[in-house]
Amino acid sequence: MTESVTQTRVERDPAPPDEFIARLRAQGTRYHNLHPFHRRMDAGELAREELQRWVANRFYYQKCIPLKDAAILANCPEIEVRREWIHRIIDHDGTAEETGGIESWLRLGEALGVSRAELQAERRVLPAVRYAVDAYVSFARQRPWIEAVASSLTELFGPSAIRVRLEALERHYEWIDPAGLEYFRTRLVKAPRDAQHALDLVVERCLTREAQDAAVAALRFKTEMLWAQLDAIERGDTQPPGEGG
Amino acid sequence: MTESVTQTRVERDPAPPDEFIARLRAQGTRYHNLHPFHRRMDAGELAREELQRWVANRFYYQKCIPLKDAAILANCPEIEVRREWIHRIIDHDGTAEETGGIESWLRLGEALGVSRAELQAERRVLPAVRYAVDAYVSFARQRPWIEAVASSLTELFGPSAIRVRLEALERHYEWIDPAGLEYFRTRLVKAPRDAQHALDLVVERCLTREAQDAAVAALRFKTEMLWAQLDAIERGDTQPPGEGG
Repeated sequence: MTESVTQTRVERDPAPPDEFIARLRAQGTRYHNLHPFHRRMDAGELAREELQRWVANRFYYQKCIPLKDAAILANCPEIEVRREWIHRIIDHDGTAEETGGIESWLRLGEALGVSRAELQAERRVLPAVRYAVDAYVSFARQRPWIEAVASSLTELFGPSAIRVRLEALERHYEWIDPAGLEYFRTRLVKAPRDAQHALDLVVERCLTREAQDAAVAALRFKTEMLWAQLDAIERGDTQPPGEGG
Repeated sequence: MTESVTQTRVERDPAPPDEFIARLRAQGTRYHNLHPFHRRMDAGELAREELQRWVANRFYYQKCIPLKDAAILANCPEIEVRREWIHRIIDHDGTAEETGGIESWLRLGEALGVSRAELQAERRVLPAVRYAVDAYVSFARQRPWIEAVASSLTELFGPSAIRVRLEALERHYEWIDPAGLEYFRTRLVKAPRDAQHALDLVVERCLTREAQDAAVAALRFKTEMLWAQLDAIERGDTQPPGEGG
């Protein structure tokens, strides 16, 4: 009996930082760069229509990122953390017309042949994509802020995936104006900085096994949410057009 | 019957902007500068201990303002609105150590003889003050963002109240280091700008009588919330000290 109690205690001790970080990084094996749709994108196999479907749907995700980050701010009582985290909102929203990550994504859409009006109108956003993104924003609103921070750690896997994607888009899809790919070039610089800050916070604050488990679960949830978007985008709109609009 | 239906319709038409603005401004008759505690403050009648109780409790409100503003951001899908609103968070949180409105409030506390450690520990925060402030943050999280914006319109009444308070603090309480009053001097400049932006938004977006009523109700809620804080601060801690801490 004594031994089993001890065993349980040891099991529930927090992992040392290296081990915890390894558990977080291990979620990269579920990152959406491994999804068949992204693999086909990277192999140059997507039709123009598929890339357009992707950019129009993925824009809804981009559009909601500042809401997610503001929800983290709204739940975080620590001024030093907020002073850092707010940069994400400024980076993505920009500070004026024609600045910021959302604007860059609108330009990406234009480069792929989808007008900004069409992106903004959200008409091509598939229901399952909307549900996935909305679930992410709700997660950030409702869960402890450190878990929402942990969910952002997909940025640990972003840069290498973006590097591959950027090269693939430039090489295989010659009809895309390279100027439209600025969003990804910017993320190559900013994502590592953002990811390191988030990782430091998560390691520093998740000091019990329960907190570490919750952080890993949050990151896993995020990988599922990104993956579900691509499932829906790959499938496309399969519903028969209704009558009366 | 027809006449009564017509009558109802007319009653529910939105008010023209001037009339709507007048309804909002009329809430100023419930603003907390009229509370007996603030009147006594302005008349130079507060004891040092009362001012200290005020600053320690009111700090909890100040501390939560960025959470309220981030909740508005998190609920606002309009990038142009967010680009403006985010300045409030930056103004209050500052961008580095020793900057921002919360820092100024800590200095005010020091000028009134309450250390920053004591303010930050929240030990002197009365339960009723905490409940009132938390209700405000919850309101911003849960209600439509434009109602939370409307609740900020107490800033329409702030500057003239602050002007009176600032002069009163300087004149009647000679033991206060005037450098500690910087928070109020800054608000004299920023509050009118913030209030005008919020008022423009509320008038522009509240285009039905229902929306206008909700905006007025939000502002009234805010005046009640500020007033309830002063009721609690005036009363002070009336609970007998318990055993065991």
